[in-house]
This record gives sequence, C-alpha cells and structure tokens, in this order.
Amino acid sequence: MQPFTVTPIGVLRTPHTSREGMPIQPTGASACRGEARINPELADGLKDLEGFSHLILLYHFHESSGYDLTLTPFLDTCKRGLFATRSPRRPCGIGLSVVRLTAVHGNVLELEGVDMLDKSPLVDIKPYVPRFDTPQGDIRCGWLEDTAEQAQEMKSDDRFVQRDSTR
Amino acid sequence: MQPFTVTPIGVLRTPHTSREGMPIQPTGASACRGEARINPELADGLKDLEGFSHLILLYHFHESSGYDLTLTPFLDTCKRGLFATRSPRRPCGIGLSVVRLTAVHGNVLELEGVDMLDKSPLVDIKPYVPRFDTPQGDIRCGWLEDTAEQAQEMKSDDRFVQRDSTR
Repeated sequence: MQPFTVTPIGVLRTPHTSREGMPIQPTGASACRGEARINPELADGLKDLEGFSHLILLYHFHESSGYDLTLTPFLDTCKRGLFATRSPRRPCGIGLSVVRLTAVHGNVLELEGVDMLDKSPLVDIKPYVPRFDTPQGDIRCGWLEDTAEQAQEMKSDDRFVQRDSTR
Repeated sequence: MQPFTVTPIGVLRTPHTSREGMPIQPTGASACRGEARINPELADGLKDLEGFSHLILLYHFHESSGYDLTLTPFLDTCKRGLFATRSPRRPCGIGLSVVRLTAVHGNVLELEGVDMLDKSPLVDIKPYVPRFDTPQGDIRCGWLEDTAEQAQEMKSDDRFVQRDSTR
C-alpha cells in the first residue's frame, strides 16, 4: 500500500491553544465555538453547505507524532488497542469530529462543538447525513460502553504530547 | 498548511471490484460483507476492538484523482459544492464509512456494510461511539434531506472514474 500526500484545505481556529485542559470529545465542547477557514481558492466548494446542521471534519493532529499500539486512554486505567481508542497518536495522524455548523461567511465556517487544537490543519469537510453515518440496530461500545459518558466532563492532560515514540 | 504523508495501515477487501454498480453508501450495502486486512505488525493495535459493533473506517479513494469544486452528485440533478457532497473526488482523497464489525481474527476484521472499492487502502479505524459521533438535537441535511433515502437503492456509475480534472 503506497503512502500518499494530503494537502490541508484550510485551518481550524478554536479556543484550545494548549492540549492541557481541552475537551477530549465534541460532547465535552458543545458550547465551544470555533471557525474553519478554508483556503480562499476552494471557497466555491462550500456551496450548499449552509443547509447542513452538522459536519464531519477530518483534520491533522499536527502536534502529535508517532504512536504506540496499546495505550492507556483518558477514559480508562488500563491499556487498550490503539484502534479501539480515539487517541491522537495514530499512524495516519488524522482526527475526526462531528461539529455543528452555525453559519457560512465566504470561506469561513462558524462552528460549535470544536474539540480540536487551535490551528489544526483541516483535511476534509463532509456533510453529516444520519442515513449514511448513524448505524441502525444494536450498537455496542466495548470498553467505552460505561465510560464514554464521562468524556463530557473530562479534559485533556499532557499524555499525548509529542514525545519519543515506539514508532 | 504543510502537506503530510499518510501511510495505509492495511487493505479493504470487498465485493466491489468496479465502480459501476457498487453501492454509493453503506446504507445501500448493509448486506455486503468484506474484510479489513491490517498489516500484521499493527495487529496489537486491534486489541479490544471486538467489543465494538461499529467502526468508522477512513480509506484512500485510490482510483479517484483530482476534484471539481462543484459537481452533480449521484443523488441530484444540479451542481452542488464539493464539500456538501460525499464525492470520492476531493482534495484529501479520503473516504469515510461506518460499517458493522462482525468478527476479529488476528489481523483480519470481518465487516458488514462495505461500500468501498475492493483493495482500497485502509487509512484508519476508529471505534464508533454514539456519544461522540451521533449529534444531538435537530439535524438538517440540506440538499440531501429528501434524497438521502434514495441512496439505499442507488448504484454508482462511471461519473467519478479517473479523468482529466480541473485540478
């Protein structure tokens, strides 16, 4: 599988200038307002976006690097497999958050529920469509079944700051 | 914003060997079974994944290239802004699908609801957690409000095959 290059389409501006104390998920950031500033030459691609209440944002965890295949997540006390967590330290370095879109002004999107670090490079915007993105039927959440609720209260600490990594 | 390199973590195997006739969203592929084959050296990162019923997969649209800022999507008859669509021809070249995880065998995940092309490079696996990923309150779907339902029946055609692009 060949590596490929991703060029950001803009930048996210949020109140979270430091990882310490920032919300760890949008559920803990519902009141947090921020902006997506799209490169002006891509602004035509934002047409029709204002009809959507929610967006899926993909962005670069630009201050994280490397990864460990098992880690102790914020919401737990024992090691979990990396792909069963939402840790920012992952092979692709890409984060995903569902946020609320409150307004579009030219190449700037006004957002609510931003849980990403200020100045995170924005990689993609996809409209959130329940019929595509909300699974039907029973949903099981493994180790997060009981603890996901706590994410609303939980803030980040420095455990995922850039450091020497096993990879 | 600096470009960065993404190295796939594995490959997706699906019944969709050609874009023509493949489902355009997981909702149209709920019975479609496939596999994610993770690079063996990353298998430890799959620990604890079997507790989750659904996964968010990020993958490379490896047979699409370039993009147009406005396009006529499968589900519509007029041009829409690229970022208000789920078109595979987008700047980052990354697709997102929510699929059901039915089993984990070593470095292989058995999946249901695969709507991606066979041999798509897998970029990331994130556990689907309703509290993180399902927005609360009113959800508006813009131009997809009435047409998303049709995605269940709709199949792809050749409109997004690789071709000379405006970019």
